[in-house]
Amino acid sequence: MKVMVLGGDGYCGWPTSLYLSDKGHEVTIVDNFARRTIDHELSASSLTPILDLKERVKAWLEVSGRQIGVEYGDLLDWEFLSEAAKRHEPEAIVHFAEQRAAPYSMIDRRHAVYTQHNNVIGNLNVLFAINEYVPDCHLVKLGTMGEYGQPNIDIEEGYLRIEHNGRTDVLPYPKQPGSWYHLSKVHDSHNIHFASKIWGLRATDLNQGVVYGTVTEQTERDPRLQNRFDYEEVFGTVLNRFCAQTAIGHPLTVYGNGSQTRGYLDIRDTVRCVELAVLNPAERGEMRVYNQFTEEFSVKELADLVVHAASKLGVEASMEEIENPRVEKYDHYYNAAHTKLLDLGLEPHYLSDSLLDSLLNIAVEHKERVDTDVMMPSVSWRSGRAKQRINKAPAQPSTA
Amino acid sequence: MKVMVLGGDGYCGWPTSLYLSDKGHEVTIVDNFARRTIDHELSASSLTPILDLKERVKAWLEVSGRQIGVEYGDLLDWEFLSEAAKRHEPEAIVHFAEQRAAPYSMIDRRHAVYTQHNNVIGNLNVLFAINEYVPDCHLVKLGTMGEYGQPNIDIEEGYLRIEHNGRTDVLPYPKQPGSWYHLSKVHDSHNIHFASKIWGLRATDLNQGVVYGTVTEQTERDPRLQNRFDYEEVFGTVLNRFCAQTAIGHPLTVYGNGSQTRGYLDIRDTVRCVELAVLNPAERGEMRVYNQFTEEFSVKELADLVVHAASKLGVEASMEEIENPRVEKYDHYYNAAHTKLLDLGLEPHYLSDSLLDSLLNIAVEHKERVDTDVMMPSVSWRSGRAKQRINKAPAQPSTA
Repeated sequence: MKVMVLGGDGYCGWPTSLYLSDKGHEVTIVDNFARRTIDHELSASSLTPILDLKERVKAWLEVSGRQIGVEYGDLLDWEFLSEAAKRHEPEAIVHFAEQRAAPYSMIDRRHAVYTQHNNVIGNLNVLFAINEYVPDCHLVKLGTMGEYGQPNIDIEEGYLRIEHNGRTDVLPYPKQPGSWYHLSKVHDSHNIHFASKIWGLRATDLNQGVVYGTVTEQTERDPRLQNRFDYEEVFGTVLNRFCAQTAIGHPLTVYGNGSQTRGYLDIRDTVRCVELAVLNPAERGEMRVYNQFTEEFSVKELADLVVHAASKLGVEASMEEIENPRVEKYDHYYNAAHTKLLDLGLEPHYLSDSLLDSLLNIAVEHKERVDTDVMMPSVSWRSGRAKQRINKAPAQPSTA
Repeated sequence: MKVMVLGGDGYCGWPTSLYLSDKGHEVTIVDNFARRTIDHELSASSLTPILDLKERVKAWLEVSGRQIGVEYGDLLDWEFLSEAAKRHEPEAIVHFAEQRAAPYSMIDRRHAVYTQHNNVIGNLNVLFAINEYVPDCHLVKLGTMGEYGQPNIDIEEGYLRIEHNGRTDVLPYPKQPGSWYHLSKVHDSHNIHFASKIWGLRATDLNQGVVYGTVTEQTERDPRLQNRFDYEEVFGTVLNRFCAQTAIGHPLTVYGNGSQTRGYLDIRDTVRCVELAVLNPAERGEMRVYNQFTEEFSVKELADLVVHAASKLGVEASMEEIENPRVEKYDHYYNAAHTKLLDLGLEPHYLSDSLLDSLLNIAVEHKERVDTDVMMPSVSWRSGRAKQRINKAPAQPSTA
């Protein structure tokens, strides 16, 4: 199938592109390298060294004999996007190309505006490009479980049957997102839903949980194919960050009492879920919503698992409850449906000792690349300063 | 009270500014004249002749002895907005300054993007300006009843108590907006809700119905204070459009079978509702939602009322069912709560024969200004062309 992967150079986009290519799909990556630019802004970088996209793609051709196309450009640039859609005529567009870090969106006004503008308008352009040039194309859009927030009722997959004053309807699940970033995904969901209604767009909204891991069957075939591993406070997802902290003997930074519960998944399941969505397209006029995660954990449970795994490797890890920069509930109810991808054939990689061992080993292998300055949260949800708060000194030399 | 009216030169903003000034509030209008610029784009203009804002404000000073301040600028311009907030230190900000026509947002991709960018980012800037410079200021934000769409259950005021699988929560009412414009208001509502949660912002979201009328107690004191009267297919709300059509002997353009039901209100109630919200500010951290309309009508019922009123004035009016450019349900359930503003003291001006007479008389008085070229719907919800569809010939000379 002809698949265009928007944001195919990123943490989830790159391994997804490799996976789809490996399965025989004709993959074209579209990317503006915004994620790499932000690394410069934050004086941060992937724990694992990663090559430029063209070198990556070249290596993949050598390793697999398969060609991945590359289009450099920005979804905000309609001329670029419409030409790319016309030229490639994708049957599916997988859309990862959004600013995806909640803390980044909370830095200050400029970052909030950048996030909502980039994500919402970029996605609007994608909707119009599909409708205009490839109306039968299936949009597989990455959303987030964070769209739902922390309601006191069960979370369903996108829609909720509601009885009210003796009448019934099935309505979009009410959303209570917890950052300007999460809000941008809610805005996208509403926009996509409308496009499906008025134009008959085919769409699947994948409300993804927190992703951990970095290695997939494809990335480990050659060191040049290595994926990102973000560990710092802005882009590092919590389990990856805990592993990096363990590697350098930094206490695991547990925000508040750590009872915040979320859905999680292994990056090897991310790539498979996307393929399952691509292989089973939505009907014309349908916006399906799948909750894309495999297990629920509290932050404290994850920290305990990492401490335990570290001790088996002879590494002593400790935890530190630090002031929570976010505004979120503790000890809350959390029960989210996630059966639709299982029904399509997902066989989850549950979080295991061996995965934790592997992650810790990767972190230890690259520990000289860890910058301890970017571990502690510096972005506060409560202040909402209009001006940039992150004024870090120039990148520090390695602390190793 | 010091009140800043964003969009105070517009159809609702101008009479609201006059009303608040008349009641003794210290009013400053902020406007970028986007609405007047769009008139040039569409080769359309208000049925009633209107003066430039500075002339209007000067006339008001002569008539009332009260000064209304004017700031010319754009909410997307953070430097402008933040300076204005600092300089005026408003206790309430009334925010009308958004692109407000569903058909305009549906013209093509550029107009959809303009609408969502202008509205969502402008409102984000307002939120940050309040938090940074006037954190105790109460935001009174104009939303729309169109945020709710046409659910098969009762519409409540912003929030819904939901029982699901034996558990209960009060959640934001699920939204099913019906245009890129209505979507922008839903995005705003989610953004405001979040700001109230993390920063303790005070906010009132006024989900306004379809407004009709043009005259208020203040605007009729002097012809120079006259308000806009939009009658064309893009910005003309339905009842005003029907009156203009009647005045020139054009059939009333009923979309589809006319059974679409919505909430409506007189513009004299718009200005009073805003004052009620301003006088009774939300608590810190609270986003209140009021449904701001007074009566429900179907499009067909309104057309019947206009035909009847016209016949009393000796004018024969006819109706024409034309193909509906919109995607919406017919013969649907519609029952929306609207008690909160009544509880605060609203005394509605219900739609009456005398109001219809007055509207028809205004339309007849200015009928030489009606351009018949802009009466029939030219914007289709279904096409979603990426390129501009409205390529009208230069404005026609009057058909009178």
